[in-house]
Parts: sequence; structure tokens; C-alpha cells
Amino acid sequence: LIEMHVADRVMIAADAANSIACVGLDPRPSLLPPSLRAVHLDRLGDTADAVASAFVEFNLGIIPAVAGHCAAVKPQTACYEAYGSAGWEALRQTIAAARSSGVAVIVDAKRGDIGSTAEHYAQTFFGGAMSLSGDPMRGLGADWLTVNSYLGSDAVYPFLADDRSRGVFVLVKTSNPSSDEIQGLRVDGGNVAEAAAQLVHKWGIGRTGAQGMTDVGAVIGATFPDDARKLRSLMPNTLFLVPGYGAQGADATSAVAGARPDGTGVIVSASRSIASAWQGAGDDDWAAAARAELDSMNTELFAALP
Amino acid sequence: LIEMHVADRVMIAADAANSIACVGLDPRPSLLPPSLRAVHLDRLGDTADAVASAFVEFNLGIIPAVAGHCAAVKPQTACYEAYGSAGWEALRQTIAAARSSGVAVIVDAKRGDIGSTAEHYAQTFFGGAMSLSGDPMRGLGADWLTVNSYLGSDAVYPFLADDRSRGVFVLVKTSNPSSDEIQGLRVDGGNVAEAAAQLVHKWGIGRTGAQGMTDVGAVIGATFPDDARKLRSLMPNTLFLVPGYGAQGADATSAVAGARPDGTGVIVSASRSIASAWQGAGDDDWAAAARAELDSMNTELFAALP
Repeated sequence: LIEMHVADRVMIAADAANSIACVGLDPRPSLLPPSLRAVHLDRLGDTADAVASAFVEFNLGIIPAVAGHCAAVKPQTACYEAYGSAGWEALRQTIAAARSSGVAVIVDAKRGDIGSTAEHYAQTFFGGAMSLSGDPMRGLGADWLTVNSYLGSDAVYPFLADDRSRGVFVLVKTSNPSSDEIQGLRVDGGNVAEAAAQLVHKWGIGRTGAQGMTDVGAVIGATFPDDARKLRSLMPNTLFLVPGYGAQGADATSAVAGARPDGTGVIVSASRSIASAWQGAGDDDWAAAARAELDSMNTELFAALP
Repeated sequence: LIEMHVADRVMIAADAANSIACVGLDPRPSLLPPSLRAVHLDRLGDTADAVASAFVEFNLGIIPAVAGHCAAVKPQTACYEAYGSAGWEALRQTIAAARSSGVAVIVDAKRGDIGSTAEHYAQTFFGGAMSLSGDPMRGLGADWLTVNSYLGSDAVYPFLADDRSRGVFVLVKTSNPSSDEIQGLRVDGGNVAEAAAQLVHKWGIGRTGAQGMTDVGAVIGATFPDDARKLRSLMPNTLFLVPGYGAQGADATSAVAGARPDGTGVIVSASRSIASAWQGAGDDDWAAAARAELDSMNTELFAALP
């Protein structure tokens, strides 16, 4: 069995879907349609199980509606973890549904720990945890994981696979207002984010797929387009995962600032705008409303590309 | 109800226990006594449920044996997450057992994300996630959480509480070999770790307990004692959580290098040496063996203190 390079898969999916968008799957009770909340409240009471069950129904509506029209989906682990083991099970079902729909899954967990611990996180998201009898077990089935760069290469290598079947997006320049407190510190030849970019480029050497991109991507916030352009020059073969479009205030032009001259190399994520699009439509139309919002996001992003 | 400042609680516990040790609760199937593995394999088969159930029995042996003889316990989330929702439930039961035994719980999750996401992680570990009807729900019941500094203050403040009932340990200088790739970069007046230390000091201003320490601690690896001494001068009122003692190669003198002149201010964690102490004793004695190993760790650490 020849597994395709994870970066090729996402680029081919983007090309087929005519989309560089990534649909965030970050459910929150306050963003669910009231009629959906009511069903699960009635059935399971005001419990974590009810929240988790509502999240699954919501996501299982969104996923088939956006499949084939986006480059990937991106569940944010925090939204699920907040509901304990029930939430974790909702995350597992969400990822399984996306895989069944043939959509690449970027799990946004931003894990970062020393080597032996990073191995456990790799098992969590990609599989291979040891059973009591020593056999490897299934993981969540992610294709990509976001990881933190602060601990250096020890914290990144355990997530990569020899067969390039999975990848990481390493935090380089994040979209939040205080990102410069560490990332903007001046170092020899640039700043900390640029030094992280040089590491990301180095980690990707020898790991390039047929489409020219590596399995070591970078998170580059849409809110700092000048940084994105500079960082692209340091990471010519790196996929950029770009959060911050929409709810965090960046427009399409800013979001694609890190694209390569041919328009490839960026995956722009949006969550709240898509998940809450039903608010302008109607309670029962959340999936169709999400798809309509994704379509207009796709149009905006393409218009902004070089 | 007056809740005591989280830093005072851990310092008073350390004083009462005559210990600056933190017992890591990082279970792995390969480190469990074979007889314990066999019981859970028989009962639940070679499943994630069996692993989780074995983890709980193992931890519920360790916790009462070390309670009152250590400053805190520290479960590593990765070890539990690797077993999905069953593992998450084992983490919950482990934390609940520690609380019942009156031991402070440092959850080692190294989370780091933008503000709105950090709020969800705070809900996960400390409580307050919204139910479907909008009511706050219980969290895992942690006292402290380890967090990543790369995103700056947006990623730290959501974890802190106005009543100082909970705290964070912010990654400053980690124990792993590649930590200097980012943390050792030279910046104006020092390096990145020192800049992070200055932020940690700043975040703690106005948040000091009666014992003189703040609710914004720092993770300072035992493997770099010279850095620890330098970092102490930048963070005089900061609790240091010190990993890397034992299995990662640092001795007691290195582990306490960041202590204040009066010997306070450091909590030294060990996991593998305590969890696998039964290997020199016998299958059924894992709790007593862990306690004996903790006792000798306490003796070593005290001998090394100023």
C-alpha cells in the first residue's frame, strides 16, 4: 500500500475543491441552533453528554456539506476537552466522520512537550499507543496536528512519519494580539518568529512531496500580513495554516499574504463565521448555511490570490 | 468561604510534608506491574478501557501512599489522552483521588493558545464550561496547569483567577536537549528564556500570597542549573516547577539550583523513578515501593538545599 504524501493529499484536495479554505470545527453551546440544543437537552439533560451529543450532530451536518468544497477541516481540541471524556468521544466521532467524507483533518491541539511525552501525543492523534499486552492501538486518525515550537526539534520530530503519511503545522507567528511578546523579540538576523521559521524550513528538508511542499507546515496568523510575506521568503516549500481570518479581524488580502507567487501554499481557516452562519438563515439550515458561507469565503479568498 | 492562595497552599503542604518533591503520575503499560496488567486484561480484554482501568488502580495505590509526603502530584495529560475518552476518564479519577487525599494537583498539559481558546482549556482543567442551558459545569479540578509562553500574555491570563485559587507554571526553560533552539536565542539583554522569565515576573506582580510567592510559576528544567540560578534572579517570587530530575539525568544539586537562599521556591518532579520503583521490590508492592523511593528522593533533595 502506497500512502500519498500528506502535503500532496491536501494540495490535491484543495485543487479539486477549488478552495484554500479550512473549516474550523470549534463547537460551542452558544453557537448551536436553539432547536438542536433543545433536542439534546430533552434527551440527555443538562449534562456534558448532552453537549457532546449536540456537537456531534452539528458537526455531522457540517462535514458532508463542506466536503469537496474545502481543503481541510480543523477541529479545535479545547472545545471538546472542556466536556471531559464525553467531549473527547465527540472529537473522535467528528474526526471519523471527516475521514469518511474524505476530508483532510488538521487537529488544532498546539501540543508541545519533550520527546518521550511528544510520542504519547503522537499516539493520541495518529495512533500507536501500547495496549496492556503491548500491541499498538488506534488513535484519533488525524492527518495533521498543530504543534508548539518553544521546545525545539525534540518536540516536533516525534510527530513526523517516515512514510510522510502525516504532518504538523508548527506555531511560528500566531494571530493573537500578544504574539510579539515572545515571537517579536529581536534576535541576530531577525526576530524569534523568523528563527522559528528557519527551524521549520530545516525540519522540512528532505521531506518534500511531489507537489513541492513538505510535511512540516507553519501556523502564520492572518493578522500580520507583512510578517507572512517575510516568513514566506524563509520557508519557500512550507504550507502555511492561516488562522485569524474573519472573526479575528483579518481580511482576505491579509489572509493570503503568505501565498507563493503561483497562489499555492496557504490554507486559510475560519470557524465562527461558518459555524454561526445559520443565525442569518434558520435553525434547521445550519449545514446549508455553513456551505453558503464557505462558498463566499472561497470566492473572497480566490479574488485576493495573486 | 475563603479559599487560600494557591501558592500558599502548596508551600504550606511542602512544609508540612517536609518535602519539595512532586510525584509525577505518568502511567504507561510497560511500567505497570505485570500482575496488575493481567487483572485488567482478563477483565476488559486488550482495550483502551483496560489500560485506563489499570492506570486508575495503579494511581489510586500511589496517591494515598505519597499523600502528606510530597508537595504535589503531577499527572501528564499525554499519557492519558493516548487512550482516548477512557484515558481522559482515568485522568479525571486520578485528579479526584488526589484532591480527596488533600494533595495539590499540577496538571502537566502545556497548553498554549489564543485567548478565546485558552478560556476553553481553563474550563477543561479548572471548570466553568457552559452546559446546553448556559450553566457552568465542573472541570477536572486541577490546582495548577502548565502552560506554554510562546503566544504571550493572551495565552496565560485566562488561566488565572481573581481569587488566586488556581495557578499556572509557564514554560521558561525546558529540560530537553533541544530547548536552546528557541529558548537560547540571544536577545537584547539575555536570551529568550530570560525574556520569558521577565514576562512571568511581570504577570505575577500583585498576585503574591502570604508566603511571598505568586500564582504564576515557571517550569525550569533541572538539566540546566546555571540557567536556573540566573532565572531565579529575574523571578524572585516565582515558584519553579523543576522536571528532569532522575530519569532525564539531573542530580539533586542541579534540581535545586533555582532555590531561593532560604531553600524555598522549587518543586522538583520525578515520575519514572517513583512509578517503576516496584521493579526492585515486587509486583504487589508498587505503592509502598513508590513511597520508599519518594522518601529517598526527599532525603536527597533536602541534603542538596542551601
